[in-house]
Amino acid sequence: MAGNSFGRIFKITTFGESHGKAVGVVLDGCPSMLELSEEDIQRELDRRRPGQSEITTPRNEKDEVVILSGVFEGKTTGTPICMLVYNQDYRSKDYSKVKDLFRPGHADFTYYQKYGIRDYRGGGRSSSRETIGRVCAGAVAKKILGKLGVSIYAYVKQVGNIVAENIDLNEIENNPVRCADKEAAKKMYDYILDVKKRGDSVGAIVEVVVKGVPVGIGEPVFDRLNAEIAKAIMSIPAVKGIEFGRGFQVATLHGSENNDEITRDGFVSNNAGGTLGGISTGEDLIFRFAVKPPSSILIPKRSINIYGAECEVVTEGRHDPCVAPRVVPIAEAMTAIVLVDLYLIDRARKNIF
Amino acid sequence: MAGNSFGRIFKITTFGESHGKAVGVVLDGCPSMLELSEEDIQRELDRRRPGQSEITTPRNEKDEVVILSGVFEGKTTGTPICMLVYNQDYRSKDYSKVKDLFRPGHADFTYYQKYGIRDYRGGGRSSSRETIGRVCAGAVAKKILGKLGVSIYAYVKQVGNIVAENIDLNEIENNPVRCADKEAAKKMYDYILDVKKRGDSVGAIVEVVVKGVPVGIGEPVFDRLNAEIAKAIMSIPAVKGIEFGRGFQVATLHGSENNDEITRDGFVSNNAGGTLGGISTGEDLIFRFAVKPPSSILIPKRSINIYGAECEVVTEGRHDPCVAPRVVPIAEAMTAIVLVDLYLIDRARKNIF
Amino acid sequence: MAGNSFGRIFKITTFGESHGKAVGVVLDGCPSMLELSEEDIQRELDRRRPGQSEITTPRNEKDEVVILSGVFEGKTTGTPICMLVYNQDYRSKDYSKVKDLFRPGHADFTYYQKYGIRDYRGGGRSSSRETIGRVCAGAVAKKILGKLGVSIYAYVKQVGNIVAENIDLNEIENNPVRCADKEAAKKMYDYILDVKKRGDSVGAIVEVVVKGVPVGIGEPVFDRLNAEIAKAIMSIPAVKGIEFGRGFQVATLHGSENNDEITRDGFVSNNAGGTLGGISTGEDLIFRFAVKPPSSILIPKRSINIYGAECEVVTEGRHDPCVAPRVVPIAEAMTAIVLVDLYLIDRARKNIF
Amino acid sequence: MAGNSFGRIFKITTFGESHGKAVGVVLDGCPSMLELSEEDIQRELDRRRPGQSEITTPRNEKDEVVILSGVFEGKTTGTPICMLVYNQDYRSKDYSKVKDLFRPGHADFTYYQKYGIRDYRGGGRSSSRETIGRVCAGAVAKKILGKLGVSIYAYVKQVGNIVAENIDLNEIENNPVRCADKEAAKKMYDYILDVKKRGDSVGAIVEVVVKGVPVGIGEPVFDRLNAEIAKAIMSIPAVKGIEFGRGFQVATLHGSENNDEITRDGFVSNNAGGTLGGISTGEDLIFRFAVKPPSSILIPKRSINIYGAECEVVTEGRHDPCVAPRVVPIAEAMTAIVLVDLYLIDRARKNIF
Repeated sequence: MAGNSFGRIFKITTFGESHGKAVGVVLDGCPSMLELSEEDIQRELDRRRPGQSEITTPRNEKDEVVILSGVFEGKTTGTPICMLVYNQDYRSKDYSKVKDLFRPGHADFTYYQKYGIRDYRGGGRSSSRETIGRVCAGAVAKKILGKLGVSIYAYVKQVGNIVAENIDLNEIENNPVRCADKEAAKKMYDYILDVKKRGDSVGAIVEVVVKGVPVGIGEPVFDRLNAEIAKAIMSIPAVKGIEFGRGFQVATLHGSENNDEITRDGFVSNNAGGTLGGISTGEDLIFRFAVKPPSSILIPKRSINIYGAECEVVTEGRHDPCVAPRVVPIAEAMTAIVLVDLYLIDRARKNIF
Repeated sequence: MAGNSFGRIFKITTFGESHGKAVGVVLDGCPSMLELSEEDIQRELDRRRPGQSEITTPRNEKDEVVILSGVFEGKTTGTPICMLVYNQDYRSKDYSKVKDLFRPGHADFTYYQKYGIRDYRGGGRSSSRETIGRVCAGAVAKKILGKLGVSIYAYVKQVGNIVAENIDLNEIENNPVRCADKEAAKKMYDYILDVKKRGDSVGAIVEVVVKGVPVGIGEPVFDRLNAEIAKAIMSIPAVKGIEFGRGFQVATLHGSENNDEITRDGFVSNNAGGTLGGISTGEDLIFRFAVKPPSSILIPKRSINIYGAECEVVTEGRHDPCVAPRVVPIAEAMTAIVLVDLYLIDRARKNIF
Repeated sequence: MAGNSFGRIFKITTFGESHGKAVGVVLDGCPSMLELSEEDIQRELDRRRPGQSEITTPRNEKDEVVILSGVFEGKTTGTPICMLVYNQDYRSKDYSKVKDLFRPGHADFTYYQKYGIRDYRGGGRSSSRETIGRVCAGAVAKKILGKLGVSIYAYVKQVGNIVAENIDLNEIENNPVRCADKEAAKKMYDYILDVKKRGDSVGAIVEVVVKGVPVGIGEPVFDRLNAEIAKAIMSIPAVKGIEFGRGFQVATLHGSENNDEITRDGFVSNNAGGTLGGISTGEDLIFRFAVKPPSSILIPKRSINIYGAECEVVTEGRHDPCVAPRVVPIAEAMTAIVLVDLYLIDRARKNIF
Repeated sequence: MAGNSFGRIFKITTFGESHGKAVGVVLDGCPSMLELSEEDIQRELDRRRPGQSEITTPRNEKDEVVILSGVFEGKTTGTPICMLVYNQDYRSKDYSKVKDLFRPGHADFTYYQKYGIRDYRGGGRSSSRETIGRVCAGAVAKKILGKLGVSIYAYVKQVGNIVAENIDLNEIENNPVRCADKEAAKKMYDYILDVKKRGDSVGAIVEVVVKGVPVGIGEPVFDRLNAEIAKAIMSIPAVKGIEFGRGFQVATLHGSENNDEITRDGFVSNNAGGTLGGISTGEDLIFRFAVKPPSSILIPKRSINIYGAECEVVTEGRHDPCVAPRVVPIAEAMTAIVLVDLYLIDRARKNIF
């Protein structure tokens, strides 16, 4: 209800602003007796952190996690797990220029209108640093899924007009773009670098493939697996669309083409992308989402300030020219959180009678 | 948590199966003192009901609503509004043949796996008759929005390869396709009729435009306006994707193209589709979603039955060749419910100090 | 959030006004494959219905339940169960006199202040007829608990100064007071009848004993078993207090007296009333609650009308002189709903690793 | 759903164990533009902290709060407020003796049964140090209520058989017992000291009076003001009962005595304790609750260890002989949180049409 929580039985509440003291999360509802260490979390945070390569922001933060509660002698106790990352390398001065401005494409305008006040430093709460908390909780969720035999693979599918076509899921972590196609990855890398040099930014499409999802996950009619995933992914900054299975292509398909037939050996195809009626089929869960080009660019754009005066905005500071490589672990985290939450809800009522 | 409720402060809970006694909704949290009659509801239900034209299912049900509670002397009292439609023209016999079968593309398989039992008649709970409850509650939400100066227009944008291009929002209700382009509507109509004659079905894309949305609606970071809309729309049967503003196109755009500039006269463009940081900007809220071709077709497809034996399935009965015309009021209903819910949540905390 | 729902994973939403078309409930989250019939529900409703004896209201309603959804071929399907009772023997005319008045002790004043409108007929939504929906859902919960070996016994402990002392749980349903002490029951009966003749009413205390509660039910720190029970019971009209185990007596006890010792054979005493730290111990869950004397009496009391004018109010119509006998099944219902809800939540995360 | 959150639109999530790194809270949904400093919080924490006098535990912790997020330049921004207190003066060694024991009266047994693991140091999560988070959030709630003209007074009403009778709300903070009766306070103090010397503990009753509650707060039928308060208070460790207005006395009252009459000048009496139908009347909200004697005593009691072997337990360490003085600010905090939450919910839908 209050906006900063997600999930029901496996629930996260994130907090923190970009240039405040810390960002973090409280994960409530994690089952007890799961081995958990700060290393488990750090591994995922390192995939999200800035400064990983030439194509991510040079803001150099280690983003070291501290577990404040919920773990005792290396195991979860069933009590809330609070995980924190203290903010360090912030240069709030970079933002004094934009203090009273509404940067185009950013949430400055809407936060100011809604709350009458905003922490203008680094985007405040609307900064993607908020997603650190998600990645921390997602690391726990992924560990649980691992024990259930579920694996999540997210990778960059498209940047500009460059599309990954020869998909090899083992390739993802071998290149800084996190693209599953080695050749496409190189092209994307060069392209992003070029865009960066021009002081501009570019959008992308990310695909997520989840293997090993048990049959029966998802709670119709509103809390469908695909509906929950849609909300989770759309809540990530910069995401503008999501589609499952054949996605928007279905507009041109016939039922005779799109219906997935079933034989004794299982589903013959997976146009549905892994759900029917909002419940997992046991096939791979497959979806794609689009991220917009980052709004922070060096190319001047028109805007107004809080007093209504017109001005020109150039967003200096250190920014990502393309969010795709760093949004991959965030999407995995949100996907994992949805899956654990719906898995536990299904488990609650399963096979009682 | 239990899956059949949506919304927080303006909350709906739907119930009912396709061939059970009734389908309906409890709307909890409607403000008091709103004039409300069964006619207000019926008007919207009539837009959703079967048998409207040659291109919708001939199942002939009047779908007459009864308000059981929450309204006194023509006004809402602030107590829960229960609205019911009794099922009438069902021919459960049509379904005896598919009793033990998993119809391809339908939720038969997943419901059976999840619950160990399913009401096989007409899809049971997974039938789109469930959406009657949504349309009833949506009618109330639309009435509230009307008082706030908000108008929702949904229309069919694409069927097969036919795309609406000369958009005229006043045209929508003038043609049975609910397309906003008169010429495209005719082509779509003929095309759907042709598909129907072949015993097949076809998908579509629907666009939703909301005018007059107040600035500030949406609760970051998870309950963003676009994230809530995404969940709401994705929870509608047959929906496979959703995108806001420029949507999936953003993959190929640069920040310098995609950022919406602001002048003293407001936003210069609306690539964002009406939200920034998950909060409404005051510009039109614009999104599109894709619906798959209906799974019920006369063309035989392979499947298995609950005992694992292979079989061929032909879905007789009376079905829609394309859900687009009837999904329009459902999408409007869900959009209206999200907007009222988030509007009230924003209102709760607005301008206290 | 919207006030008319209770429970999370086993969730009820009640609706309906005293003199509207119907009262009822949607129960969402009931596990599938539970045998369920209208007789199962009716049995509990018959314990709650008016006109059972001389000491309950003579309003003569059969309160016949209809199951509208969620049950197929005698079993629950995992989809929402809507249960309705149509209102019949209402005499709205009885209420025309009090249309503009605020009856002392009733919620007339507060509903009018809160909503600006009220259905004055029979108390509208604030009538205890609302609890019909609770009893319907509670019947389902009790059936589930029965399968888990859990039994709930509620009985009248005190009416006026008459206190049940020789407790025999088998006696409860043998007398119209629902007192567990045969001799006290007779005295209570006579006393209530006497109070009734004087046009007055009287309060009571009810005790609830639950046997067979599994260890581990309750979710600290807020959703403790005792905290959830407290909310559930306090939400019943007329309830003014609740206490667990030794209850208010603990004020005068020492830790050396109150701590329940444990031996190899289990707990030596049960001063705690069945919970420690908000989690069930496996001992009997024991609590008591107090119900006020019904506010509808024939003795004139001062009040004002909606225009602020002073007046005298005599509540004619047909009313209970003491709610105790009829509140027993309501308390059992709410207790059962809490237990099933928390049991399922515990089950969701239990023994995964 | 996950147990460690309370409230809907003004929602708290607490975390932390007694001897872990920190305890704290995330407060989500606080309106923006409220002046807030760490001093505002510290003032309330100082009332709760140990070591205040001879009759509280000598554990000497300053309990200094740090605000990690949600406040910018001295004002709330509408984003989540995370408040932390780092644990300092813990002596975990004191607990090594009870590592494998179930201390009588404590939650050791139930936590171990529920989770299969427990942080045995100082009670872990079941320690009343958890309530630090509540007091932090409550300080914010009280500040909001202050702006609305609402004041909360909680005080010790009874300890053992000593009852406060000459109530003076200004006296409460003048004595270490937090009793509103100066003379009774002295007797209580001496009595608690005596109990402490004997290595024992004693229970108490606390009364809460809230002045200035607006009419109309509370959401029937489940989220009534009194039901929410009951849950909130019962979720505080050691609370065993709660009653409103005349409370358990109503069992012996007649309607003709208990109904509060109304005249042009308002309610003539307040037997109801400030609510009718679960909605505030505008009269003082009045309730009392009972706290049990602390379970940690020096008098040996029988118990078993986790292997089932019998043993004798003496709870050394530093403990409160009576929780009453320190539970007062906790009760105020929970009351304030409920009131703000329900106030905001009411505000959301108020006077729209």
